[in-house]
Amino acid sequence: MAELLLPDLDPTSDRAVFRQIADHIRDAIERGTLSEGDKIPSEARLMQHYGVARMTVRNALQVLQGEGLTVAEHGRGVFVRAHPLVRRLASDRFARRHRERGKAAFIAETEGTGGKPSVDSLTIAEEQVSAEVAEKLGIPLEDHVIRRSRRYLINGQPVETAVSYIPAEIARDTQIALPDSGPGGIYARLEELGYRLDHFVEEIRSRMPLRDEVRALKLAPGVPVFRLVRTAYAADGRAVEVCDTVMSSDAYVLSYELPAR
Amino acid sequence: MAELLLPDLDPTSDRAVFRQIADHIRDAIERGTLSEGDKIPSEARLMQHYGVARMTVRNALQVLQGEGLTVAEHGRGVFVRAHPLVRRLASDRFARRHRERGKAAFIAETEGTGGKPSVDSLTIAEEQVSAEVAEKLGIPLEDHVIRRSRRYLINGQPVETAVSYIPAEIARDTQIALPDSGPGGIYARLEELGYRLDHFVEEIRSRMPLRDEVRALKLAPGVPVFRLVRTAYAADGRAVEVCDTVMSSDAYVLSYELPAR
Repeated sequence: MAELLLPDLDPTSDRAVFRQIADHIRDAIERGTLSEGDKIPSEARLMQHYGVARMTVRNALQVLQGEGLTVAEHGRGVFVRAHPLVRRLASDRFARRHRERGKAAFIAETEGTGGKPSVDSLTIAEEQVSAEVAEKLGIPLEDHVIRRSRRYLINGQPVETAVSYIPAEIARDTQIALPDSGPGGIYARLEELGYRLDHFVEEIRSRMPLRDEVRALKLAPGVPVFRLVRTAYAADGRAVEVCDTVMSSDAYVLSYELPAR
Repeated sequence: MAELLLPDLDPTSDRAVFRQIADHIRDAIERGTLSEGDKIPSEARLMQHYGVARMTVRNALQVLQGEGLTVAEHGRGVFVRAHPLVRRLASDRFARRHRERGKAAFIAETEGTGGKPSVDSLTIAEEQVSAEVAEKLGIPLEDHVIRRSRRYLINGQPVETAVSYIPAEIARDTQIALPDSGPGGIYARLEELGYRLDHFVEEIRSRMPLRDEVRALKLAPGVPVFRLVRTAYAADGRAVEVCDTVMSSDAYVLSYELPAR
């Protein structure tokens, strides 16, 4: 244990023993004494160092896992969680120049990161609009939308799920309702249909994932998600698409430019 | 238990019993059968309904608390977590028109939400710059910065901590280094000093809070934080401030406008 210099327990503290142990290991991670991918001392070594029962050590390790600081690998031990490739999303990622070069946003974003982008789990349906989407699109609740749902992966690791809603009146019987939406993606198709895009509004929330989201994004314990809802506006002010995305917080840094004027 | 219609356990499932119980309650919350502030059935009732030991029920409730779905109130029971007042941050929150009316950004943001803003825990110091801030400010590691640290509260509830770093060469012996930075805040002072602001860049990450952050923001279990780092740029392209903030994800929706051009 000497290499980690974990302190001893404080018998005068009113802090539970398992929390004290978690504190010591957390401090080592935050100070960088333990780095990404480093192995946490085994249960047996921690039991010996602190003179406590196995359950106490397990409870301490559970705390750290819940905080997203460590990950247990079956049969190998517990490790400081390594953060995967982070995709930095810039303010210009929906710029027309990308669409004109035939690139959809996800491909444009991934360029230069060294990652290999892919898309799976694509489903397309026409359905009645939900209340939340109807409000954002400014359409009546009776209206239908084309719903395009898909999952984005980098190097085979899921990073984001996205569901686009486009008024059926606009998208029905167009390439937007086909599995291959063509070069530049659905934004390029919307512009060809006469809806020249003016701007987007993104709303960002952060929360712990729901169970389906843990599965779809293969999230480690203690990893929150961004929920980002983007609305695309045409030049006449009409909302033409709502895109509801859930992103692994491990995989993204979002970057925005704000005016000072 | 009839009012909740919790299903029975599936004895053929390979999913642990406490996870099945957590699944049932989570489903009720996600479907809206249990709403914000509703009480979860007591341990005794859950034990009786499922025919399981108290520890099993406690483990199930622990899962939900870790997901941020419930909160335990000592002596009263476990409740569906109510989300506090959410502050919606818009792209124009650093617009000059707010500064010219003598309002700092935090005050301008809070207007119209019905909340009462306050600031505490203010500390000001001159110190050597860190590597991360030096890189963003584009200054050498030997340089000093004025460090302004403070905590923001709405209706007495902490929502955000913020630490601003301004090159000491700019801010030393000015009102920026005083506790009261004056009307319009430090951005107004920077403009008076001749650093007309051009734009800001915000970088947003999401993660589980560190222990100090849980304390400073009084976060419930299972509530992640936004870490938002903003850099302010003057008209000549020089970075004049870095502001490192940690925000309760419960208290904020971030909103940005992106160009389509």
